[in-house]
Amino acid sequence: MRLDLDTIRSADRRIRPYIHRTPVLTSSRLDEASGASLFLKCENFQKIGAFKARGATNAVFLLNDVAAQRGVATHSSGNHGAAVARAAKLRGIPAHIVMPSNSAKVKICAVEGYGAHIVFCEPTEQAREVACADAIAKTGATLIHSFENENVIAGQGTAAVELLEEVPDLDLVMCPVGGGGLLCGTAVAAKSMRPKIKVIAVEPANADDAAQSFRAGRRIVTQKKFTIADGLRTNVGEPNFAIIQRYVDDIMTVSEEAIVSAMRTIWETMKIIIEPSAAVPYAAIQEAKIDVSAKRVGIILTGGNVDLDALPWNL
Amino acid sequence: MRLDLDTIRSADRRIRPYIHRTPVLTSSRLDEASGASLFLKCENFQKIGAFKARGATNAVFLLNDVAAQRGVATHSSGNHGAAVARAAKLRGIPAHIVMPSNSAKVKICAVEGYGAHIVFCEPTEQAREVACADAIAKTGATLIHSFENENVIAGQGTAAVELLEEVPDLDLVMCPVGGGGLLCGTAVAAKSMRPKIKVIAVEPANADDAAQSFRAGRRIVTQKKFTIADGLRTNVGEPNFAIIQRYVDDIMTVSEEAIVSAMRTIWETMKIIIEPSAAVPYAAIQEAKIDVSAKRVGIILTGGNVDLDALPWNL
Repeated sequence: MRLDLDTIRSADRRIRPYIHRTPVLTSSRLDEASGASLFLKCENFQKIGAFKARGATNAVFLLNDVAAQRGVATHSSGNHGAAVARAAKLRGIPAHIVMPSNSAKVKICAVEGYGAHIVFCEPTEQAREVACADAIAKTGATLIHSFENENVIAGQGTAAVELLEEVPDLDLVMCPVGGGGLLCGTAVAAKSMRPKIKVIAVEPANADDAAQSFRAGRRIVTQKKFTIADGLRTNVGEPNFAIIQRYVDDIMTVSEEAIVSAMRTIWETMKIIIEPSAAVPYAAIQEAKIDVSAKRVGIILTGGNVDLDALPWNL
Repeated sequence: MRLDLDTIRSADRRIRPYIHRTPVLTSSRLDEASGASLFLKCENFQKIGAFKARGATNAVFLLNDVAAQRGVATHSSGNHGAAVARAAKLRGIPAHIVMPSNSAKVKICAVEGYGAHIVFCEPTEQAREVACADAIAKTGATLIHSFENENVIAGQGTAAVELLEEVPDLDLVMCPVGGGGLLCGTAVAAKSMRPKIKVIAVEPANADDAAQSFRAGRRIVTQKKFTIADGLRTNVGEPNFAIIQRYVDDIMTVSEEAIVSAMRTIWETMKIIIEPSAAVPYAAIQEAKIDVSAKRVGIILTGGNVDLDALPWNL
């Protein structure tokens, strides 16, 4: 996979007309609590409410015209499906989004709102892949995988480029890890722009395949327990793990309680809405899993799509 | 009362070191839904989580040294108490905050956190005033009234100054009205900086004394029904009503359902946390109480202090 700062900067120019340059917020109260200077990159304010708009837009606009006309396809129960649907609409091409039949209604509406064709399937990983392969066989659409696609990864890396352009002298950058698309883009961008920076990934203890793999030095696929951070249930991808081994400094895990507590702290302190997955890096700081005192720390807040009728502190 | 753009600009310079210049956010989705261009002044991101930090800071820092040493006092169940406590701490003087004994614990903690002396009283308007007068008699503290004090009003007007500096060509500016401190400061600042601008106030139908007074041409004090917009239960003050008659173009009312719906729309669309009172102006737009099509509309989002355990759509 060719993934370097040049491909990420190209992605940045390509997607610029279609995405927000999101703000970087600070909080004196969070700084006091952590002893660090925190810089929060607000991808919860991004188009479709999550960083996923970046990678999907880059991948869709990189297709040549012949392939593009046949459309794009993906399987996703979450933000990536909406991101691909929106990018396809912007390019004026068909999108086939495979979603589990038990997907939240708000997520189905979002994808429908962009005019995509939805294919419902049983809520298993295998059913999703079969339904997606089927749609591709019928239509000739191109698969836009949510984290293994190199153009998606390059697009996700543009958030870190913007963050480091705005705050160049960071000591470390933190983001959550699920499949590894955001982490790989972030790590390559950050280490290329600032070689001395540390890149720290955080994942729920209930879905700790990346941390296990990192320690073992080989990719380990695990059966996942439930985690409130539903965006992070996926196992790290093969190509992603190779990049992680090369560029990431550490991967740590946090408890479910810490994730909910960190999410609530950020809501109450900063008055911004973030989804549970976005709270995972701050949970590691709040739980003192990492010493950030006197450090300048960039954190990518990945998204803000939550069901206000089912907030975790009400469950 | 001497209240003009000069006094508001002086307040702006005075409080600058102590408050945030809050961002003005826009939303393509809210613009589509309303047919207008909306500019949302985010006082939910302000110190203490509400615009009240502005007026209290101005009033506390305007005291001469002799008066200041005797301290300040106020009665408030909400954001103004925290704002006075914080301003007093910044100036290094005592603050006596009278709060109803049934105040939310989080509000009590906020005031305590600034080192203020809390006086608890029965939850009636009369008991609050008696307890406050008593504290003043004992200590010689200066009363900082939450909306009748002219220095408080001048301070609240600085939010509109910032808004119009950032977006000069607004057709109208909207804010909620309770006691009238924010509305008066906003109206004087906006009409002075841009004489053709319309100033529209909105209040809950369940607390519509300002709208009744405006139509009658004289100040009417009403018994209030419950409203979720707890910051707006107060009757408009005497000095405030005189300014409102001179500077405000209209006052409209909205239902409780519209307030909750507008609050939820802004949370979901913009991923920011605002309190019910802050949603009141957008409720008038969403309920089509006002035609804003093709207009450039400034809205002051007054604050973001909500109890996440008691959100209105879960009640």
